[in-house]
Amino acid sequence: MRILGLDPGIERTGWGVVDTKGHDFLAVDYGLIVTGKQDSLPERLFVIWGELNKIMARHSPEVVAVEELFFAKNAKSAIQVGHGRGVCLLAAAAHGIPVEEVTPLQVKSSIVGYGAATKEQIATMVQRILGLSKIPRPDDTCDALAIAVTACIKRSFSARLVREKDK
Amino acid sequence: MRILGLDPGIERTGWGVVDTKGHDFLAVDYGLIVTGKQDSLPERLFVIWGELNKIMARHSPEVVAVEELFFAKNAKSAIQVGHGRGVCLLAAAAHGIPVEEVTPLQVKSSIVGYGAATKEQIATMVQRILGLSKIPRPDDTCDALAIAVTACIKRSFSARLVREKDK
Repeated sequence: MRILGLDPGIERTGWGVVDTKGHDFLAVDYGLIVTGKQDSLPERLFVIWGELNKIMARHSPEVVAVEELFFAKNAKSAIQVGHGRGVCLLAAAAHGIPVEEVTPLQVKSSIVGYGAATKEQIATMVQRILGLSKIPRPDDTCDALAIAVTACIKRSFSARLVREKDK
Repeated sequence: MRILGLDPGIERTGWGVVDTKGHDFLAVDYGLIVTGKQDSLPERLFVIWGELNKIMARHSPEVVAVEELFFAKNAKSAIQVGHGRGVCLLAAAAHGIPVEEVTPLQVKSSIVGYGAATKEQIATMVQRILGLSKIPRPDDTCDALAIAVTACIKRSFSARLVREKDK
């Protein structure tokens, strides 16, 4: 299974493509979409849209994973996050790719093993799980990879449950 | 000048195309994009995206107008509004159309003449300004037309200011 994890933001959108086969995970490609501060919000969304389209066409993920969001510092920042997240979801739908939403708690539990894990612990485990020589940076990219791995685990766990039920 | 006013929402996105010539306003076309409750959020955003692209291609607006948003009932609803608004801004950028943001206060002041105007007063004035036989319904469509008219007034006022300055 190939999953594209996304960590949306107007300024920086982290992305990471992860392949899974059994219990092994492989980081296929990852990076960061950066938009210019001097550009208008619509222009920045259009840059994100263009890059996402290229990434999806290049890597043909079977699932797009994003974090469920229920909170934000304030309504203004929530609307801003929503703008970028909306473009991510739209790009998935435009490519006919299903979206898997994972909660921050699921990320921490899946990657580190407990729900109070710190950002640094998650980063170290992402590096180890994916067998990378160093921690992927910046945080947005590392978070996107963590989201992709979490969605892989969630999906294979659900699939196993279905198989157990069918036995 | 031709302006497309948008009132974004995941369930219902109101839209209205207004032409202006001097002090006259003409409602060229208006309507409502409705998405299915049974569809996923990405699918609903994709429906909005598809309809917006058709409207923009059909009417070639010179400006897209949306309301500035600073508040929402809570962070979750703010993120939801942001999703739809992001797709509207993206569609404008994809068509190379500049975006004009208007505040709720500007809408009330421009349409009714004072900042404490009710929704019903705005609706009645929208009907009168555009010379329509009845109030455009539902509210989302009427709001989109009010946003378009407000952006027209704001733009022509700014243009007049520039002309006065150049004299």
